[in-house]
Amino acid sequence: MFEEILKNVQEKTPLVHSITNYVTVNDCANIILACGGSPIMADDINEVEDITSICNTLVINIGTLNERTIDSMIKAGKKANELKHPVILDPVGAGASKFRNDTVKKLLSAVNFSVIRGNISEIKAVNAGSGTTKGVDTDINDAVSNDNLKEVVSFAKALSQKTGAIIAITGAIDIVADSQKAYIIKNGTSAMSKITGTGCMLTTVIASFCGGNYDNLLDSTACAVSAMGICGELALEKVTKLDEGTSSLRTYIIDYMSKINSSILNKKMKIETI
Amino acid sequence: MFEEILKNVQEKTPLVHSITNYVTVNDCANIILACGGSPIMADDINEVEDITSICNTLVINIGTLNERTIDSMIKAGKKANELKHPVILDPVGAGASKFRNDTVKKLLSAVNFSVIRGNISEIKAVNAGSGTTKGVDTDINDAVSNDNLKEVVSFAKALSQKTGAIIAITGAIDIVADSQKAYIIKNGTSAMSKITGTGCMLTTVIASFCGGNYDNLLDSTACAVSAMGICGELALEKVTKLDEGTSSLRTYIIDYMSKINSSILNKKMKIETI
Amino acid sequence: MFEEILKNVQEKTPLVHSITNYVTVNDCANIILACGGSPIMADDINEVEDITSICNTLVINIGTLNERTIDSMIKAGKKANELKHPVILDPVGAGASKFRNDTVKKLLSAVNFSVIRGNISEIKAVNAGSGTTKGVDTDINDAVSNDNLKEVVSFAKALSQKTGAIIAITGAIDIVADSQKAYIIKNGTSAMSKITGTGCMLTTVIASFCGGNYDNLLDSTACAVSAMGICGELALEKVTKLDEGTSSLRTYIIDYMSKINSSILNKKMKIETI
Repeated sequence: MFEEILKNVQEKTPLVHSITNYVTVNDCANIILACGGSPIMADDINEVEDITSICNTLVINIGTLNERTIDSMIKAGKKANELKHPVILDPVGAGASKFRNDTVKKLLSAVNFSVIRGNISEIKAVNAGSGTTKGVDTDINDAVSNDNLKEVVSFAKALSQKTGAIIAITGAIDIVADSQKAYIIKNGTSAMSKITGTGCMLTTVIASFCGGNYDNLLDSTACAVSAMGICGELALEKVTKLDEGTSSLRTYIIDYMSKINSSILNKKMKIETI
Repeated sequence: MFEEILKNVQEKTPLVHSITNYVTVNDCANIILACGGSPIMADDINEVEDITSICNTLVINIGTLNERTIDSMIKAGKKANELKHPVILDPVGAGASKFRNDTVKKLLSAVNFSVIRGNISEIKAVNAGSGTTKGVDTDINDAVSNDNLKEVVSFAKALSQKTGAIIAITGAIDIVADSQKAYIIKNGTSAMSKITGTGCMLTTVIASFCGGNYDNLLDSTACAVSAMGICGELALEKVTKLDEGTSSLRTYIIDYMSKINSSILNKKMKIETI
Repeated sequence: MFEEILKNVQEKTPLVHSITNYVTVNDCANIILACGGSPIMADDINEVEDITSICNTLVINIGTLNERTIDSMIKAGKKANELKHPVILDPVGAGASKFRNDTVKKLLSAVNFSVIRGNISEIKAVNAGSGTTKGVDTDINDAVSNDNLKEVVSFAKALSQKTGAIIAITGAIDIVADSQKAYIIKNGTSAMSKITGTGCMLTTVIASFCGGNYDNLLDSTACAVSAMGICGELALEKVTKLDEGTSSLRTYIIDYMSKINSSILNKKMKIETI
């Protein structure tokens, strides 16, 4: 199944429209190309509908949020919903300011997201902004481990139920869940947190994978998360061998994504359902 | 002649003012430095005239266009025209939205461009926006090949006649033409399309070359296009040899640009006039 | 002492809030992580106070200044002052436009900076904007050398006296001074000027070092300047050995920053007080 997902991305070259932050945007564009998609970044309110219409999928990333682009995000999101394109939310830094929390709330009420990807604290902030009822328990620590895994999976499933979106919580252990089913993914390495943008990049890889596989968003998201982790592992091996540092790690993650194939996936994926 | 052009860039260190997109801006700044120029990025309406006045050349790139910067582009463009600085247009994504098409039209009517560089579909969109008369045939496919080369050259010459700008159409085969003369350049590799920003970077290399060679813009543009292609070829050789990927390719393109010299140009240029 | 400073950064992981330009922002985020800090970029007026409040230090960089973000800079700066966080100014391109000069003047009158870092011409522009009295002589050439070193040190000390900020003037020879004491640092290499953003990156390293060492800003700034120079030297050695170019140099500077330790500092620092 995962080979099929990867093949679809590489053969269909999905166009990914991103409204995103200016910190990691170049890495995002490059990793979209590396994994088989094609990137377009456009955030002006006068063109976001046109651009989304010629694309296959939309990424909304709030990393360097500003008032001008929030309206663009909503307009693009609504258009993508209308066209039934997958819409992926990366709630970067949700929880860090009232402005981000309010924006997440606004986005969640205006746009139907297909996938929401963040670390546990961002996803908890999304949960806080996703409704007034307190049906979902959020008393979870900020690190996902084998100890609290079941609890976090239940939280993810409940949040998926509430939002209608697949929830991807990434960290030392990654969880990808809809309301019924969850994947646990143990690829990746903590070294990835020493470079900026691995989260943002992953979100755009998810978007590319979903853009090539409209009918299979849960598996595509899980596959993208695992693929990114694998690239991180391979990159770290190379950096360690060559005694290099974090900037080389970034380069190699994108390098390996540009060479990912089904045989690497088969050999390296550490993924199970729960 | 091409050695002379390169020498002028490297000796004069032309200052290049860019109003550009936030996706590829860092690569653009680095490749301007690599080829011998010096970059300044500034887009606020309150300073674009001041900045352009201390520079030698101006790049206008519409990659992540927004309403705020369009006025800055026009103001800077008019000032650069007044000062007789070369002004280079990169109509990124022209054709993809009404907003971009309208902006291209606005720019073309307000500013005299010295060079316009894009892929064939962008240049066709520029043509559509460059006047009401339909004197120039645009019924050309979106890939330039040996089969339609003469047709595209005629189109480029006619568009140059209409706009007063040198037209650089880049792709598998590159064409650089004014109304009288055209260069056909066969350097480069398709791998360059797997990284973001090779087009944007090339535009800034053209700007640097033109900034050091005011009296010879056509040859300078052709030389820049060829030099960029050569760097792509050398980078791909290295990536292939080391079994690396697309992010390393990007690094090496800029690396090779920082080491370009007349002996490499002489050995590698695949350029002819038509 | 310098080992202690480095250890504090690496153990405390200071959060660095940057309001900065979009040209070098990714390199800045990556080098903050490399040296031991954690980056947050946020520039919207609605959240800068919230963001600064959860951080340890603030960087204000005017590289791609625009009207929207000036108010954010001032608001964040005042909040950081209130919280007694170190605030670091990078007056990129000061002197190049009236808009930048006016903004520097505005910033200096609204915010108390802990450190101001620039090249000699930027720092001279800061001096011109730092008051109406002409008490500080600025008749200094745009290159700091052994010949005019004493003069520049006096200038830096006087400017520090006037502004209350530590003054870091970087170039072939670096000077870090408060009103009483100055460090002369001779690490680094001219090759660093062939990549964009070494200045901006250094400013964020200074911010990280100051964020981990509130009680010792002068020594921390000097240590950061020296560390950055050492990374440049090591990177150039590697690039030269491998016959690579400027983009690899950028990668290796960040790589070496991610591996800096007290034994490298002890062996390589070229620092003296005057």
